[in-house]
Amino acid sequence: MFRTHTCGELRLSDVNTEVILSGWVAGSRDFGSLTFVDLRDRYGITQLAFNEEINKELLLQARELGREYVIQVKGKVAERSNKNTKIPTGDIEIIANEIKVLNVSKIPPFTIEENTDGGEDLRMQYRYLDLRRESVRKKLELRHRVAQFTREYLSKNGFLEVETPVLIKSTPEGARDFVVPSRMNEGEFYALPQSPQTFKQLLMVAGFDKYFQIVKCFRDEDLRADRQPEFTQIDCEMSFVEREDVLQTFEGLVKHLFKEEKGLEITQIPRMSYADAMYNYGSDKPDIRFGMTFHYLDDIAKGKGFGIFDNSQSIIAICAKGAANYTRKQIDELTDYVKRPQIGAKGLIWCRYAEDGLKSSVDKFFSTTDLQKWAEKCSAQVGDLILVLSGDTTATQKQMNELRLYLGTQLGLRDNSVYSPLWVIDFPLLEWDEEAQRFFAMHHPFTSPNPEDISKLDSNPASVNANAYDLVINGVEVGGGSVRIFDKSLQSKMFKILGFTPDEAQKQFGFLMNAFEYGAPPHAGIAFGFDRLCSLFGGSDSIRDYIAFPKNNKGRDMMIDAPSTISQEQLNELSLSITITDKK
Amino acid sequence: MFRTHTCGELRLSDVNTEVILSGWVAGSRDFGSLTFVDLRDRYGITQLAFNEEINKELLLQARELGREYVIQVKGKVAERSNKNTKIPTGDIEIIANEIKVLNVSKIPPFTIEENTDGGEDLRMQYRYLDLRRESVRKKLELRHRVAQFTREYLSKNGFLEVETPVLIKSTPEGARDFVVPSRMNEGEFYALPQSPQTFKQLLMVAGFDKYFQIVKCFRDEDLRADRQPEFTQIDCEMSFVEREDVLQTFEGLVKHLFKEEKGLEITQIPRMSYADAMYNYGSDKPDIRFGMTFHYLDDIAKGKGFGIFDNSQSIIAICAKGAANYTRKQIDELTDYVKRPQIGAKGLIWCRYAEDGLKSSVDKFFSTTDLQKWAEKCSAQVGDLILVLSGDTTATQKQMNELRLYLGTQLGLRDNSVYSPLWVIDFPLLEWDEEAQRFFAMHHPFTSPNPEDISKLDSNPASVNANAYDLVINGVEVGGGSVRIFDKSLQSKMFKILGFTPDEAQKQFGFLMNAFEYGAPPHAGIAFGFDRLCSLFGGSDSIRDYIAFPKNNKGRDMMIDAPSTISQEQLNELSLSITITDKK
Repeated sequence: MFRTHTCGELRLSDVNTEVILSGWVAGSRDFGSLTFVDLRDRYGITQLAFNEEINKELLLQARELGREYVIQVKGKVAERSNKNTKIPTGDIEIIANEIKVLNVSKIPPFTIEENTDGGEDLRMQYRYLDLRRESVRKKLELRHRVAQFTREYLSKNGFLEVETPVLIKSTPEGARDFVVPSRMNEGEFYALPQSPQTFKQLLMVAGFDKYFQIVKCFRDEDLRADRQPEFTQIDCEMSFVEREDVLQTFEGLVKHLFKEEKGLEITQIPRMSYADAMYNYGSDKPDIRFGMTFHYLDDIAKGKGFGIFDNSQSIIAICAKGAANYTRKQIDELTDYVKRPQIGAKGLIWCRYAEDGLKSSVDKFFSTTDLQKWAEKCSAQVGDLILVLSGDTTATQKQMNELRLYLGTQLGLRDNSVYSPLWVIDFPLLEWDEEAQRFFAMHHPFTSPNPEDISKLDSNPASVNANAYDLVINGVEVGGGSVRIFDKSLQSKMFKILGFTPDEAQKQFGFLMNAFEYGAPPHAGIAFGFDRLCSLFGGSDSIRDYIAFPKNNKGRDMMIDAPSTISQEQLNELSLSITITDKK
Repeated sequence: MFRTHTCGELRLSDVNTEVILSGWVAGSRDFGSLTFVDLRDRYGITQLAFNEEINKELLLQARELGREYVIQVKGKVAERSNKNTKIPTGDIEIIANEIKVLNVSKIPPFTIEENTDGGEDLRMQYRYLDLRRESVRKKLELRHRVAQFTREYLSKNGFLEVETPVLIKSTPEGARDFVVPSRMNEGEFYALPQSPQTFKQLLMVAGFDKYFQIVKCFRDEDLRADRQPEFTQIDCEMSFVEREDVLQTFEGLVKHLFKEEKGLEITQIPRMSYADAMYNYGSDKPDIRFGMTFHYLDDIAKGKGFGIFDNSQSIIAICAKGAANYTRKQIDELTDYVKRPQIGAKGLIWCRYAEDGLKSSVDKFFSTTDLQKWAEKCSAQVGDLILVLSGDTTATQKQMNELRLYLGTQLGLRDNSVYSPLWVIDFPLLEWDEEAQRFFAMHHPFTSPNPEDISKLDSNPASVNANAYDLVINGVEVGGGSVRIFDKSLQSKMFKILGFTPDEAQKQFGFLMNAFEYGAPPHAGIAFGFDRLCSLFGGSDSIRDYIAFPKNNKGRDMMIDAPSTISQEQLNELSLSITITDKK
């Protein structure tokens, strides 16, 4: 037997018990006749005490233990004279009477501590050592719990977890597929799923009624920070439901997860239309932990001789409460922020509401009375700072969204321990692509229009809203879904609007369209980004930390050094050859 | 709202309730002024009644409903005059007052009934219709439950579910990998995991202590019946454990699953050495639901002038209880069975223990006294039939194993509702491959030798037993695992015995061996074939039935028609070209 207890469970009530522990040497402190060793395992740290007076030979042995050695120790639990209140085992220590080195360790390339000296690349290369750090392990423990809570809730609510295949068929629509050459079907390829979308819809046709899966999905995209080529979704679908049923069901899931994982009671998740989100926050995923919504000054700020405003499509203001004391330097810094190429504003107008009245960067054009109207419009009071951007409406909304979030962070309004979930609904069904000169589905081609908008599909497709919904938490899109089209003629119309010929539609989605001819029920679904959800629960911005073995921005696993070359024999078996050329 | 109730939940206590149901038309019976429609969903079937006297127009509408139409019906629950005791809703029917056709259906290519007229290929092509059949759906419901019970048990026992990557690195050892070309790393490939073996061992190095995952694995093998290119494993690993800890933990899992899913209490799972299994059953996965173990007659049947026995390495008998009344024809049929090329016996000797004494097919060589000794050896009694095969020991054991199983089935000794789990232990560590003239790891290269055998690794590697274990249920290998090597020098020795140069070992397993230099704990694990486990719980031999969207023997998904060709543009992006040639 390697252990009677873990390194996290002994307490004062165990004093005088003979125990065996196993774990890693996390560190030691040598005081001459006395040496202390911290023994670590997944469950905690327990102090081992070695005393010259009790056992000199053992003390010498203990001094030889290197960091990260794996040892087994026998001894008796004793009360500590110098208690450590920071750890649950801090009241006790083990008076060791035997040590066995189970394995030695080289000196780790970085320290296994909270504030490690290892850089990102080094920690990824030695991920198995990085994972020994408590904070990293705790993130994956959270992931484990959230997965189990999710399954628990969905199972209890009648959902069946069904595994859909990983080796499927490539479809050109959407992001780029990873493909898998088939040896047995020469010259043919499987594709890895970007999502189980079609399979879950087929399960609805099959009468499965309620489906879920926590499932790996794959996208061969150029990776930005925090995008992974393989990622995990909580994927769900239901039959005989309308939007309201879906929102209620998954509002229940969100509440369950917050309660179980965070101990938080979420009452009701508010809803906001896409149009309102864009108008008031300049974003389809507004962070509603704080206000600072947009105010449109067009009526009151145009025609005063300030050319920039006069030539703008929209003049948008936000009111930063209590920020009237911002220094010139601070405001300049905000101006520099919005002028960065990624944001692209030309400048930033400000108006302070100080004790001694209103003062703005455009006093030359606007009288105190004018500025008073701005203040009224923005509900600004003494002590507040009004910030204004103008220009093309859409661009200005986006710029103002960035400024709002930046200021929100600066003013401490975006506390990671506060959670404000939100349903965003009534998205446009279609997006016009200037380059391709055609509509694309904003969600995907199976998304149903809002029932009241179906009649506008022919006359004014751009005005049609989708029966779709996103779950946004703290400004992060955590999930999204839609009511699906289950009627073949409506589906055909959609394909036509999206510019598919019937042949193309048949080739790409034929098996789904054929299935829809055999009694497809009304159905709807949703998928949540599981990596993202976990990082949100963990209060972190990085999804990579919540993945046990993540890949870097080039899609490489630094630890196992994948991808890698394969043998000529493997290529021959797959009827493939590599043609490295200059690519366009 | 599409429904107030499902088609499986209404009972006599609901009589007079106004309800809305939605579902598929499973069938209808037209009696002129009265028409009954069976409405089906995942939860059951409810009878809808249409009566000319009540609503003639609705009756006419009901008559127009085709099979598999999706409808919504409003009506009142009524007690049936003619109750159906075979279904839970059989006491009631719905007196319909409104029908809405939600979707029509073409006539399905086969009947959606238990005894369908659809052949295997047709049902696979229309898998979404096959899945509407109750028996097929119930198999996937079972799979859902077994997955949740598994997670429940393992989570409760401190295991963390950790997702390991799907895009990993190809290693030539073992079965053939599926590979995935990397666009961003030109000329390089990922591989899909055959199992998460190395990752779970790295998680142990990382101190995760107890890991599990229900995970897809991939093998590009030539498919035999009931092999799938993608399959699912319950994959587990533990640290600071010996074999006994692992067997106890997973015996607990097996008991939990049998109790929750089958309502069966499994007491203790017996253990049998590989040597005993081969000696007594001729198989490393004996079906111990019945006896009929092997008896070796060498001592008593040699030297009696029967050349076939005299020239045999082993003479093996089994005793079929109560089979003395087998006719000549029945025995001939058994003889034909063992002489089939797949089994390869040259003939079958029999000896009947009838009321009037012993009678055999070799009476010319063996006296009654001789046969009496056979009977004693086999504990045969009046009424029994002794069957004897002889030849090379290993071959004869294998042949007799086949005969024993065949007879066991014939005599009704292999009841699918009886479950006899068994641990098979002490496997040989190595297998000698004549062709390659080297040892292969019987399990995998990380399997530890039995502690007491380590000293024999140099002197007599073939005699070394592995610290490995298989879980066998009813003659089916359901799981297997081993205590791992965690010591670098022992691992190096193993690689040497397996014929790897240090360079090759470093290239293939380098990242694991490197990890082992940083304090690898003692660890051990096991993996269960989840598809197989589900089919066993379902009392079926086919794993395909327990997979929602299986592939056929050529690795094709008949429904979505995958694999398929991809575009030249995709090939270009991947720097690949297809070279279809005559392959060796």
